[in-house]
Amino acid sequence: MELTIYLAGQIHDDWRNEIRKKAEKEKLPINFVSPQENHALSDDIGEKILGEQPSKVYRDDAASSINNFRTRVLLQKSDAVIAYFGESYKQWNTAMDAGAAIQAGKPLILVRPESLIHPLKELSNQADVTVETLDQALEVLTYLYE
Amino acid sequence: MELTIYLAGQIHDDWRNEIRKKAEKEKLPINFVSPQENHALSDDIGEKILGEQPSKVYRDDAASSINNFRTRVLLQKSDAVIAYFGESYKQWNTAMDAGAAIQAGKPLILVRPESLIHPLKELSNQADVTVETLDQALEVLTYLYE
Amino acid sequence: MELTIYLAGQIHDDWRNEIRKKAEKEKLPINFVSPQENHALSDDIGEKILGEQPSKVYRDDAASSINNFRTRVLLQKSDAVIAYFGESYKQWNTAMDAGAAIQAGKPLILVRPESLIHPLKELSNQADVTVETLDQALEVLTYLYE
Amino acid sequence: MELTIYLAGQIHDDWRNEIRKKAEKEKLPINFVSPQENHALSDDIGEKILGEQPSKVYRDDAASSINNFRTRVLLQKSDAVIAYFGESYKQWNTAMDAGAAIQAGKPLILVRPESLIHPLKELSNQADVTVETLDQALEVLTYLYE
Amino acid sequence: MELTIYLAGQIHDDWRNEIRKKAEKEKLPINFVSPQENHALSDDIGEKILGEQPSKVYRDDAASSINNFRTRVLLQKSDAVIAYFGESYKQWNTAMDAGAAIQAGKPLILVRPESLIHPLKELSNQADVTVETLDQALEVLTYLYE
Amino acid sequence: MELTIYLAGQIHDDWRNEIRKKAEKEKLPINFVSPQENHALSDDIGEKILGEQPSKVYRDDAASSINNFRTRVLLQKSDAVIAYFGESYKQWNTAMDAGAAIQAGKPLILVRPESLIHPLKELSNQADVTVETLDQALEVLTYLYE
Amino acid sequence: MELTIYLAGQIHDDWRNEIRKKAEKEKLPINFVSPQENHALSDDIGEKILGEQPSKVYRDDAASSINNFRTRVLLQKSDAVIAYFGESYKQWNTAMDAGAAIQAGKPLILVRPESLIHPLKELSNQADVTVETLDQALEVLTYLYE
Amino acid sequence: MELTIYLAGQIHDDWRNEIRKKAEKEKLPINFVSPQENHALSDDIGEKILGEQPSKVYRDDAASSINNFRTRVLLQKSDAVIAYFGESYKQWNTAMDAGAAIQAGKPLILVRPESLIHPLKELSNQADVTVETLDQALEVLTYLYE
Repeated sequence: MELTIYLAGQIHDDWRNEIRKKAEKEKLPINFVSPQENHALSDDIGEKILGEQPSKVYRDDAASSINNFRTRVLLQKSDAVIAYFGESYKQWNTAMDAGAAIQAGKPLILVRPESLIHPLKELSNQADVTVETLDQALEVLTYLYE
Repeated sequence: MELTIYLAGQIHDDWRNEIRKKAEKEKLPINFVSPQENHALSDDIGEKILGEQPSKVYRDDAASSINNFRTRVLLQKSDAVIAYFGESYKQWNTAMDAGAAIQAGKPLILVRPESLIHPLKELSNQADVTVETLDQALEVLTYLYE
Repeated sequence: MELTIYLAGQIHDDWRNEIRKKAEKEKLPINFVSPQENHALSDDIGEKILGEQPSKVYRDDAASSINNFRTRVLLQKSDAVIAYFGESYKQWNTAMDAGAAIQAGKPLILVRPESLIHPLKELSNQADVTVETLDQALEVLTYLYE
Repeated sequence: MELTIYLAGQIHDDWRNEIRKKAEKEKLPINFVSPQENHALSDDIGEKILGEQPSKVYRDDAASSINNFRTRVLLQKSDAVIAYFGESYKQWNTAMDAGAAIQAGKPLILVRPESLIHPLKELSNQADVTVETLDQALEVLTYLYE
Repeated sequence: MELTIYLAGQIHDDWRNEIRKKAEKEKLPINFVSPQENHALSDDIGEKILGEQPSKVYRDDAASSINNFRTRVLLQKSDAVIAYFGESYKQWNTAMDAGAAIQAGKPLILVRPESLIHPLKELSNQADVTVETLDQALEVLTYLYE
Repeated sequence: MELTIYLAGQIHDDWRNEIRKKAEKEKLPINFVSPQENHALSDDIGEKILGEQPSKVYRDDAASSINNFRTRVLLQKSDAVIAYFGESYKQWNTAMDAGAAIQAGKPLILVRPESLIHPLKELSNQADVTVETLDQALEVLTYLYE
Repeated sequence: MELTIYLAGQIHDDWRNEIRKKAEKEKLPINFVSPQENHALSDDIGEKILGEQPSKVYRDDAASSINNFRTRVLLQKSDAVIAYFGESYKQWNTAMDAGAAIQAGKPLILVRPESLIHPLKELSNQADVTVETLDQALEVLTYLYE
Repeated sequence: MELTIYLAGQIHDDWRNEIRKKAEKEKLPINFVSPQENHALSDDIGEKILGEQPSKVYRDDAASSINNFRTRVLLQKSDAVIAYFGESYKQWNTAMDAGAAIQAGKPLILVRPESLIHPLKELSNQADVTVETLDQALEVLTYLYE
């Protein structure tokens, strides 16, 4: 059974490719989808398509509309969601995507370090599974095929 | 027409009562509901009901399950949601509630200061209305009755 | 049985009040809700709440976000929708609201003059009832209580 | 990941084939679906299948029922919708399809020339992305695969 | 707890008023709603509102659109449905309403005489409760309050 | 685009195979599904699987539960429904399936002879398309691919 | 804010009235609904309404259809569910109602003694809140009003 | 037509493989999915992924969250559900899964021995089909392809 998993989280480092490689190594028939992982492109995409905007605010607004479109299309195609929180960045998109996934009935794995237990306790409580590392999240996915 | 509005956001200061007072002054037939606004009670409620827990993590987990129950019951009774972000605190619950509201089709007003435009651009883009102050949010509600 | 009916359509003349008066005269227990009927206010509401915007486009965008919020809140509270088309104005909001009502399962009465039969044939075909005058629409509502 | 995109809009010129060709050239794995693009056939289909109707009104009604059936089947199979407005024609079907797409949770790209910003401001505000040209809409789709 | 019950079935005799009287006698807080029970009015309502139609077929079509509007509004307001079949008439509306109620998740009581067990076996199997008389259906409703 | 179409209607003659053959001849990529078309098997299936039942009523009940299971599984897999009424048999299952299809948002083609216009006027009015012959229904399906 | 709470669980003793009394004492504006609490009546209701059945199996089937009708009507009217497990009885209805509540998005409080932690671990994990006593469940409800 | 069937029930013996073998022998194009069938692994999976837990209760909680995640992903991919009850074990998960399947609109086959007719009468009444043996359940699935 092939599955599609949406990887919600920050786009400042290469964590998604690590998951992809490990899943490939274990030959899991999983298709991982994600927001735009090229951060610069993600910020530029509004002006790249719509042309220069009057100010930074409108530049952000243009980019976010296209990034949201991408997220909604891919999230709707997904069978489950991994939401990954780290110690840097505000990560409000991650929390918003997790809330949307819960409400849409998409099974959710929350990944967060021990240091974030307190501020993420409500989200953890609503997630289907909470783990501390990406490797553990992958083990949960592997378990679907055991 | 009476409406019920859920007020998502931090529970460290008295912002909800300000909204309630102003709405009352304008005689808006609106019933505002919210998470537990007594912060200490919100943190203690798990052990208060379930007894002492083995560690801080489990204390948090117990409290959050009861707080989530409250949020879900009240959010489902609401006709719209106000999500208020300020410059302090992680506010991941606020983002999660906003994501849930969007996905559930609850009309959403986002309130955030100018300084948070960039990190909240995706959420702002999905909200029905984005404003910068609570007074503006109240004006949007007032407009429903004009 | 009290009902709430959303009145979709242009806001350039007083057609909604005519319906309200006639319904009141017939003592129908119906609560009519609507978009903002004060056209100037409807156009100004964005800048009125959010302050001056950088250009007419952004002024329009600000106003429309607040008008959409109003429409969504009220449409969700409604038991049925009347969509009224006349010979003037583009009325794309009316068509969009009608499409949303159909998709949301809200029973829909389409009101349109004979001259618009051809361009509205698909919408008419999806509406529950199509009539030519507001008086006929009101007769359909009256029939609910006979 | 293959996607199906519904192309809502007028059927008087060849705009859909332009999109199809460009998408093919970029090797996007997208299947575009649409209302009947042969305008004469679209108007005739009712009488073609059901035989001559008593008047033009009934001829229109017969055709529209079959065109609506087509739209509903294909819209339900789609992952997202492009709604394209130009300066000619009433295009109420386009607005109705856009409203239905929004309500059904289908991500929506609105395409409209600068001249239509004001009358389409509410629809633009509810769309996920608004652009001015079909090429821009295609760039948004391309971005899903980047 | 007040309940609203939709009474689906033929409109050739006075069976609904019998139920209403008995429920009133037992002081059940139930509001019964129904299709138009005045058969002549039900057939005439299309032409009464829309004027004379070109033929009997179009007269029927006009009436049925208004009757369907009524049924949809009232069915959506109902907490449960009674579908009553007798030995006369085709009663396809009753079967269609029962199918709609089942699919919409409205609890359904089927009332049918012993002679109709075979042709209604699939519908009976999908109904929540099947009884043979209207008195029995009323006893089921009474049981909700015991 | 492959489609699955559910063929609701009586199971006393071979009408479904006629449709299948014609569709195959036109090379339409359509998979037709249906209730059990072997009438004797359809009546016997309960006792065949569950063993002899205490009476004809229970024999019918056992069979109908298995036939309903089949219908629900296949209807949920379908993209659209054809409901075919003829002049014989009570056909309440057909009407119930049509009601369920409408409520579930499955596009519906109603096929009924001219003689049944009056008793099926409400169902016709709610169907997406109404035609008089199976050949016409097939032409509607063919139109999806034109 | 008035709430309706469904009390799922065995009907062999008086636990629901204890909850009702305590809630009344604390003046909580909560309306508690439940399956039939008179056990004998619950078992007899099928034959009481439908007359004697051919065997105990059919007697059970008749009763359960009416009890299920009651449960579905009342569960749909509820804002949240309490599912109470004790050490006696199979309580499969309780587990089924809990599963239905979770799937329907009704917030759920699970009450179970310490001795049942292991067999109810999956249900506990899906419930919003798990407590060990009815008094604790009532405290959770009280917290909604604090 | 390929189907996916979820097999809910205890995981103490090899009943699922029997079904799989028989289905394979009959060349049914059915993909059976299930909870973790390795009972020891099912109990250990929490600590295996998350490390040692502070007590048996937390060990259970960790395991159940991962088992629930698996169930939710697979149940959502399924076209129908078989819930199998035997005379041993509490089987509350089976009842909860059955309740969730009914509420989610997944067609349900209940398998239970004659000795469990009374305690499972409500669940049986809500299931689409009730049979006494796994072979009978397989015959029902076979019937889908006849």
